[in-house]
Amino acid sequence: MTLGEAKDFSYLYSDETKARKPSPLKTCIHLFQDPNIIFLGGGLPLSDYFPWDNLVVDSPLPPFAKGIGAPLTGTKEDSLKVSIKKQDQSNGTIPLARGLQYGFTNGQPELIKFLKEHNTIIHDMKYADWDVIATTGNTNAWESTLRIFCNKGDVILAEAHSFSSSLASAEAQGVIVFPLPIDQNGIIPEKLEAIMDNWNPEAAKPKLLYTIPTGQNPTGTSLADDRKEKIYRIAQKHDFIIVEDEPYYFLQMEPYIRDPKERTAKKLTHEEFLKSLAKTFLSIDTEGRVIRLDSFSKVLAPATRLGWITASKSILQSYVYLHEMTIQAASGFTQALVAGTLNSWGQDGYLDWLLGLRHEYTLKRDNAIDALHKYLPKTDAFVVNPPIAGMFFTVDIDASAHPEFKAKYDSDPAQVEHAIYEKVISSGVLVVPGSWFKTEGETVPPQPVESKMTGNRNEIFFRGTYAAVSPEKLTEGLKRLSIALKEEFGL
Amino acid sequence: MTLGEAKDFSYLYSDETKARKPSPLKTCIHLFQDPNIIFLGGGLPLSDYFPWDNLVVDSPLPPFAKGIGAPLTGTKEDSLKVSIKKQDQSNGTIPLARGLQYGFTNGQPELIKFLKEHNTIIHDMKYADWDVIATTGNTNAWESTLRIFCNKGDVILAEAHSFSSSLASAEAQGVIVFPLPIDQNGIIPEKLEAIMDNWNPEAAKPKLLYTIPTGQNPTGTSLADDRKEKIYRIAQKHDFIIVEDEPYYFLQMEPYIRDPKERTAKKLTHEEFLKSLAKTFLSIDTEGRVIRLDSFSKVLAPATRLGWITASKSILQSYVYLHEMTIQAASGFTQALVAGTLNSWGQDGYLDWLLGLRHEYTLKRDNAIDALHKYLPKTDAFVVNPPIAGMFFTVDIDASAHPEFKAKYDSDPAQVEHAIYEKVISSGVLVVPGSWFKTEGETVPPQPVESKMTGNRNEIFFRGTYAAVSPEKLTEGLKRLSIALKEEFGL
Repeated sequence: MTLGEAKDFSYLYSDETKARKPSPLKTCIHLFQDPNIIFLGGGLPLSDYFPWDNLVVDSPLPPFAKGIGAPLTGTKEDSLKVSIKKQDQSNGTIPLARGLQYGFTNGQPELIKFLKEHNTIIHDMKYADWDVIATTGNTNAWESTLRIFCNKGDVILAEAHSFSSSLASAEAQGVIVFPLPIDQNGIIPEKLEAIMDNWNPEAAKPKLLYTIPTGQNPTGTSLADDRKEKIYRIAQKHDFIIVEDEPYYFLQMEPYIRDPKERTAKKLTHEEFLKSLAKTFLSIDTEGRVIRLDSFSKVLAPATRLGWITASKSILQSYVYLHEMTIQAASGFTQALVAGTLNSWGQDGYLDWLLGLRHEYTLKRDNAIDALHKYLPKTDAFVVNPPIAGMFFTVDIDASAHPEFKAKYDSDPAQVEHAIYEKVISSGVLVVPGSWFKTEGETVPPQPVESKMTGNRNEIFFRGTYAAVSPEKLTEGLKRLSIALKEEFGL
Repeated sequence: MTLGEAKDFSYLYSDETKARKPSPLKTCIHLFQDPNIIFLGGGLPLSDYFPWDNLVVDSPLPPFAKGIGAPLTGTKEDSLKVSIKKQDQSNGTIPLARGLQYGFTNGQPELIKFLKEHNTIIHDMKYADWDVIATTGNTNAWESTLRIFCNKGDVILAEAHSFSSSLASAEAQGVIVFPLPIDQNGIIPEKLEAIMDNWNPEAAKPKLLYTIPTGQNPTGTSLADDRKEKIYRIAQKHDFIIVEDEPYYFLQMEPYIRDPKERTAKKLTHEEFLKSLAKTFLSIDTEGRVIRLDSFSKVLAPATRLGWITASKSILQSYVYLHEMTIQAASGFTQALVAGTLNSWGQDGYLDWLLGLRHEYTLKRDNAIDALHKYLPKTDAFVVNPPIAGMFFTVDIDASAHPEFKAKYDSDPAQVEHAIYEKVISSGVLVVPGSWFKTEGETVPPQPVESKMTGNRNEIFFRGTYAAVSPEKLTEGLKRLSIALKEEFGL
């Protein structure tokens, strides 16, 4: 099948993006490669003066038989050496003489090639002229996305609770975030459609939908596959771009099974693993309407400060122009070490790594949910939704079940939330109040947005993570949380 | 002497900076360190899953006796191994378990400590509450500076020719850049003062002066020390911030001596070296009015994507808030490798490295200027100003000396520039037209700005670099340039 080309969405760009002129210096950069030209055009230091050579790092060896967290012995049994030279370019590594020089704002070719191959394994791309560029992570990629599309006063859509830093970026730029109702399966397409169909005809329509489809932060929910198809159709109908911010995509887990005896530790094949993954907006997109933000932060390590954007070539070009004036490129050391490692592992080895992550996070999640089931008071006032992806769980609480809801807290769920937060900290555990993640942009047109899960306006929730601590500490922490809630609610 | 505190310049901030609220998550982050709290607050992956350990790199050994560009043998004679472990923190290295984790937006402590010590060696700091934060290089640091201070429509000051990418950043943000007259010694204080004294009282006054004081890009000039004092006083009088963008500061060279026989290859002591360096705006600043941007791009390698800002603690805090929503932090690999290398070298070793750079760039500059003197036609129409710092030289040309200035080019120097550019390329060398770097912001109030050097409105110039190519190629390139000019001017 011949795939079509992406549409031109440049009419959605911000004034800033429209004003951004390519540097005149770029008009001569092709002469840099011309053997007949002595190029005295650019301030590039000689690589002779880069004070490094023979960069080496130990990495675990696929298929990571002892688990991805097992300490390395440094022997060939379980380790491989990724070796990067200043000049030599064997094994798909980026030589430091190039990797540490200016250039390649899009990302070094050895990295981009791996990422594009990876993309074609994960997504079922439905248009021809998509591409990939390297980023310094999704935080920056999202902030840049706002700069590229939004003027002050523009409106975007986002889940009613979303990552506070993403919302704060928009707010600081003067962009209004319209909150979308969500439930256990994420954004509710019917409600989104009703909102858009009834959008105030006087007001500018939203340019972007910002969503964290998988293991959403803070709710821990994942957007159901069939909803993505519907949301994409609404995006076409109302002409907005979908930005899928997917740092947790490869932290998808086995479904939670309440009875530990019924859990199987069966290892998935690569084929089963790929089939198990959520359908992506990218796989639905036929016209370059989706911008996907991927990151190594949760999959390899946060301070690689490396990720990638997948989108149409034409949209990516505006990121490149912006990057030339901002980050220029991701760190050359990071690109060399990550590309060196991934190319040593190969695509199959990387799938083994991701499978290993799936296994570890399944154990962590099970551990957390088991503890909550064990220790939390058995009452309808406390609901735990076992997540199927990501780092976060939530405990949803009916604030009106608090014995002093009316008398002491004036029937205000926010006051109950605050009281619980203080109680929880004094009990020696920290979980984060859901209200800290509330999408607080003006609702244009004014539209009541229901609470996260139930439509119950007295529902509050707390976000916790099972990612960051050992199983023992996690269990102890959740015990403390449960005791705090029991005491607070007089149970 | 007890130093005073920096003034509060927050009234100069942009609307965006004023609107930027610290994340509520930051209010609980101190509990992360509390041993009595089990912290389930943040989505931090376990460092067990970072797939790297035993990061090692060879670096040259101070005092770099064979020159900073000599290839490494990898033996103890000339090399040292910088070794970074996942957990171990000996030798001032950043353990990867911390270095690759979230956090330390300001920069890892081992790096910041080195930079602060380095700063106190280089600058004579005159107020107490200065500090340093890590950046991803000066391009991003400058773009962030614009975001922090400027609204659309604000005015800043800059050299009449300046780095095109810095100007383009401002332009895209809708910031107007007012061009300042310059001569061989940089900005002319008397002209700056006259401009400011006569500033249209109806118009908003500039918030920032953007300057590249040392080895300016593109003019190759350096701002004289006594002018800095005067400019600082004007900044106080008219209340603007000085941003000194100093990527070339450590590419200061020996003065150019025309007769090669009179050149001495005498190696400076550290004391002589430090005394030879240009006075910095930072050393003059008594009230936190200066923001200095330093970078490792020209001193170690461009794609380290690492630099630092020195400013008052209170101004730096607004960068940190912005960085939390953008870059988050510089790459952990880069910070670990750069801090590991610098801490292995020590402050003295780093001065040796910088002395080595000075030596190499002096040779390169001499080579370039010698060739220009040798090959360029001997006429007042072509002037070469030997730079004392940086990567760039310029050839200044009186366009009116072109035999067809009136007849063919309509007495328009821009047309002569374009004709020369085409001629030069067809002769097999590339140098960059000065007009590409013209600061083209509106002049408010309308004010004629003289040409770069002479006040001659027919003066044009071309920028070349001696940094990027070998001595042989450079000589050949400048020969081609000279022949092209000779032919074009019928000499």
